[in-house]
Amino acid sequence: MTRIGVLTSGGDSPGMNACIRAVVRRGTSLGVEVWGIKRGFKGLINGEMEKLDNRKVGGIIQKGGTFLQTARCPEFRDPRMVREGVRRLNEAGIEGLVIIGGDGSMRGAFALHEMGIPVVGVPASIDNDVWGTDMCIGVDTALNTVLLAIDRIKDTATSHGRAFLIEVMGRESGYLALMGGLAGGAEAVLIPEKDTPLEEIARVVEEAYIKGKPHAIIIIAEGAKHKTQEVASFLTQDEVGFEVRTIILGHIQRGGSPTAFDRILASRFGVAAVDALVQGKTGVMVALVGNKVELIPLKEVISKTKGLEPEMIEMAEVLAQ
Amino acid sequence: MTRIGVLTSGGDSPGMNACIRAVVRRGTSLGVEVWGIKRGFKGLINGEMEKLDNRKVGGIIQKGGTFLQTARCPEFRDPRMVREGVRRLNEAGIEGLVIIGGDGSMRGAFALHEMGIPVVGVPASIDNDVWGTDMCIGVDTALNTVLLAIDRIKDTATSHGRAFLIEVMGRESGYLALMGGLAGGAEAVLIPEKDTPLEEIARVVEEAYIKGKPHAIIIIAEGAKHKTQEVASFLTQDEVGFEVRTIILGHIQRGGSPTAFDRILASRFGVAAVDALVQGKTGVMVALVGNKVELIPLKEVISKTKGLEPEMIEMAEVLAQ
Amino acid sequence: MTRIGVLTSGGDSPGMNACIRAVVRRGTSLGVEVWGIKRGFKGLINGEMEKLDNRKVGGIIQKGGTFLQTARCPEFRDPRMVREGVRRLNEAGIEGLVIIGGDGSMRGAFALHEMGIPVVGVPASIDNDVWGTDMCIGVDTALNTVLLAIDRIKDTATSHGRAFLIEVMGRESGYLALMGGLAGGAEAVLIPEKDTPLEEIARVVEEAYIKGKPHAIIIIAEGAKHKTQEVASFLTQDEVGFEVRTIILGHIQRGGSPTAFDRILASRFGVAAVDALVQGKTGVMVALVGNKVELIPLKEVISKTKGLEPEMIEMAEVLAQ
Amino acid sequence: MTRIGVLTSGGDSPGMNACIRAVVRRGTSLGVEVWGIKRGFKGLINGEMEKLDNRKVGGIIQKGGTFLQTARCPEFRDPRMVREGVRRLNEAGIEGLVIIGGDGSMRGAFALHEMGIPVVGVPASIDNDVWGTDMCIGVDTALNTVLLAIDRIKDTATSHGRAFLIEVMGRESGYLALMGGLAGGAEAVLIPEKDTPLEEIARVVEEAYIKGKPHAIIIIAEGAKHKTQEVASFLTQDEVGFEVRTIILGHIQRGGSPTAFDRILASRFGVAAVDALVQGKTGVMVALVGNKVELIPLKEVISKTKGLEPEMIEMAEVLAQ
Repeated sequence: MTRIGVLTSGGDSPGMNACIRAVVRRGTSLGVEVWGIKRGFKGLINGEMEKLDNRKVGGIIQKGGTFLQTARCPEFRDPRMVREGVRRLNEAGIEGLVIIGGDGSMRGAFALHEMGIPVVGVPASIDNDVWGTDMCIGVDTALNTVLLAIDRIKDTATSHGRAFLIEVMGRESGYLALMGGLAGGAEAVLIPEKDTPLEEIARVVEEAYIKGKPHAIIIIAEGAKHKTQEVASFLTQDEVGFEVRTIILGHIQRGGSPTAFDRILASRFGVAAVDALVQGKTGVMVALVGNKVELIPLKEVISKTKGLEPEMIEMAEVLAQ
Repeated sequence: MTRIGVLTSGGDSPGMNACIRAVVRRGTSLGVEVWGIKRGFKGLINGEMEKLDNRKVGGIIQKGGTFLQTARCPEFRDPRMVREGVRRLNEAGIEGLVIIGGDGSMRGAFALHEMGIPVVGVPASIDNDVWGTDMCIGVDTALNTVLLAIDRIKDTATSHGRAFLIEVMGRESGYLALMGGLAGGAEAVLIPEKDTPLEEIARVVEEAYIKGKPHAIIIIAEGAKHKTQEVASFLTQDEVGFEVRTIILGHIQRGGSPTAFDRILASRFGVAAVDALVQGKTGVMVALVGNKVELIPLKEVISKTKGLEPEMIEMAEVLAQ
Repeated sequence: MTRIGVLTSGGDSPGMNACIRAVVRRGTSLGVEVWGIKRGFKGLINGEMEKLDNRKVGGIIQKGGTFLQTARCPEFRDPRMVREGVRRLNEAGIEGLVIIGGDGSMRGAFALHEMGIPVVGVPASIDNDVWGTDMCIGVDTALNTVLLAIDRIKDTATSHGRAFLIEVMGRESGYLALMGGLAGGAEAVLIPEKDTPLEEIARVVEEAYIKGKPHAIIIIAEGAKHKTQEVASFLTQDEVGFEVRTIILGHIQRGGSPTAFDRILASRFGVAAVDALVQGKTGVMVALVGNKVELIPLKEVISKTKGLEPEMIEMAEVLAQ
Repeated sequence: MTRIGVLTSGGDSPGMNACIRAVVRRGTSLGVEVWGIKRGFKGLINGEMEKLDNRKVGGIIQKGGTFLQTARCPEFRDPRMVREGVRRLNEAGIEGLVIIGGDGSMRGAFALHEMGIPVVGVPASIDNDVWGTDMCIGVDTALNTVLLAIDRIKDTATSHGRAFLIEVMGRESGYLALMGGLAGGAEAVLIPEKDTPLEEIARVVEEAYIKGKPHAIIIIAEGAKHKTQEVASFLTQDEVGFEVRTIILGHIQRGGSPTAFDRILASRFGVAAVDALVQGKTGVMVALVGNKVELIPLKEVISKTKGLEPEMIEMAEVLAQ
């Protein structure tokens, strides 16, 4: 293998740049040329690519987002579009591909693999919803961003004696919400993985009020059954003691300079992905299992759903008392 | 004067604790006892107060919010409630009062002054909307929080090639939006002080797209004529090139450890307020004018409206190109 | 078991408070009373202790350091001092002990265990030098603090075209240096675990200069064979192209609000430690192995030395190119 | 005037990039071409320059350091070197110059002005030691970096009950030390502007110990009469109660993304400098006076020494109690 490509796809996450850097530098050290494909599968179809080298990826390890840019590309579900991508790769003499992204991107990666392109996936998504890996690139940074916001909101919540409902990202996963709630010392956490009745939330907030706590913080995953506004209305009508305010953290959760954890994970993943490609492996995703990097078949990755550890859900409740 | 009180009122802002600390320590150094009144005018009416000393305000200079807590208290517009407050102060032997808060709080301060209580106001509000002072306590911290959010959103905006509308606090003032836009390098800023037609905003965003800018950032003050959702709909319908996303920063702007500027301003204001009280001044507010702390009559403060400097508005436009 | 104690010992590390909070709240949920012992083994010997409850540990999860305070206590190596400690525990009716600290503290924990006190250790040390656990409480926060400093120094290094030698903590361990160097994109890392000749370092810096890199960053572990000043002198005499500057990060690495990772690890460790005590386990330390919390005999912990993974050392070199 | 140059000189400071951006964009809006000169006066002598435009300064407002790079250039005191610089400017058709830097740079600027080159200086220096302006670019960011370090060190100081001596930058000025001490709640501050005997420092630290304070923080300016190590030795010999530790903050004070204040100040200064040049003014420096930007003759700037406000020194002492 003498020339490989790398692309970032789907929602961006902090650490993608650190991963691209590792792919390029590991490629260079093995005598493999690395090409960057812009704007994910969209750019692949359009043939937007450029040769990268060690200097071009200098100074990017600390930058959020992805300098190759990214895009969501639903049309890549169409096999004719995948065929177009394969043609572009062949034209450019690119013999293998590293695809950095979330579970949708892993589907695209699998489609290319099935068309005969050597492909290794790298899980990157702040939602931590890719099956097979303990952590995706970007989760740790997003979690710390959520935490910083919770810490800030506690200042104002305490000053006014208020209950705050904080909605965090995660699509169908409650990972960010649960871990943010644990680390932020929240009174309750609402996640898609567990059904919490509105009455139960009201009881928790009211109890916090009665105990004399200076505030109550409720973290709500965007995919939770009860939506933030619905919870706010219920709490207000139920008169839980505290006045209620809501905040939707939104896209600030995607940005920011990656944490040490994300830079190191991204670096390990990038190196492992190139090594796998060079060793002739394809149709796999690099994954963190315990503290080892392993290879998992993409077929499994895209057919299974990652869940939360029940131990963590229980612990969050015990520590909130 | 041997015993004075201090309270924080209205919306909380970072640096209030640093100001309380300065009031207490300055009082102590002059042989004046300082009592803390909890929860603003609400706590005053209820007689919630405790004696403070130098040790009790140790370790709070770096904390956001206000450990005396605060509350909005519309009922304090009722003169009978003010009378209740005066009675509480007399009962407790409190001979003068430092009132830390925004323009609503300065109204309450003036009402107490008119009832014969020696009062000095201290402007604290992230909105920077108190007339007579260049800066209020908390503005600098809130501005840096806004900036951090803009910097983060730029990462994801660039990665996806998007336009982001970021709504910031400020009530009727565009200060945070304008300064945040200037410091954040935004493409446009929408503020209550200036009417920007929707077509003009669309033109700016489209131009940024044509120039090849990687993203467009629009900062919208909560008090701007066109509301965030309205602007988003217009830009989407008008097809400005970039996809459009919105984010409302909300209450994270109130919290956080105060910046150096806010801690120092708060300290200066606290010392000056006690000095003024002890020198027999009342019905005044401490204010930053240039880089001097001056005393301004509360009567003027509450009858005038602070505006923005046109020079800044113009500069924001020139530098956005 | 109806009453247990908790103490923090040795060098402080961020997340100790989160761990104390978890110990208290888990104890409460199991009907076990928790007493806090001040100033580590020193306070134990002096009988400085107070009863804790859920409210007393409210609002501390985000605070650096340890509110129970800590101390180094070399005299605890004397069995008579250990005996004194045992007497204090018996006097107070404390039936078991959670000891949070580094490897020296684990030695003290083992000594108490050998005197018949049920003891569970919790590894907390920014050096990550405790055998048996992948991570200690505080490492992730310290690493991110180091990273922030590296990112800052890069700004000035680039502006002046300089080589910077940055000395980081870690005692006999190179963990912080190696991981900081990896995540910070350093040109070279000097650690106790690997002997790097001065000529080799000079070669790396000179190569960076020749390649046109805007700066060179060298991270030096405090325990590395060649000391920072020695390296600086050698590089200056050897004329490596860049001007050379040094910085010793020092105690800023110990402080700061703990990261999400450290707060969650500390919480898991705290819960697991109480659970172990209640289940009658003693003479063990909670440890992170992969992503599970396990119990490791203290006897093993204190007799073995934790090393670095060679894979990481190699990766740091590949990515520095 | 149709073509001007801009350079950064001396020690770098955060916000220099924001200033260059403002110079370029203001120039563009007035139809003036702007050339960037690399590496300060050194690059000027060597003729290292490139044309800048609005896009080239996109995305730099948030970056620390200076992308034009900088250098100390003592040889520029030699009039023959200044003559060389003038020749380079004439060759390149550059009709005026914006020089961003500290007081040494203002001397260079004045020398060029005396040789007939239209020159406007912009004060940028974390030391805040340029006469005539209330604030230099970079001071606010450096101050907040100092503060972050103090806040961190307090965590560990409190946990161990220690006295910490923190040495901060500032050359002959005590500004950073005094303001950092004020904002950080330090027990004492040692600055070149005031002679504090060692016995006095020892007394303050011992008093803090006796009062039961959990720690003592002493900020020492690098230019203070008594050096950090000397103070540490004295306090240790004098047995002031607390154990003593020292830390030298060093170059981390120069880096980091500029604060809102610095970005806005830099932008205002950049715009004002170009406006002055275009209006035919020369031999002046832009300066912040109160909250207005004014022009001050360079001749005065370089012949006077900026001092500290005695009010601030006194306030720091009162609030430290």
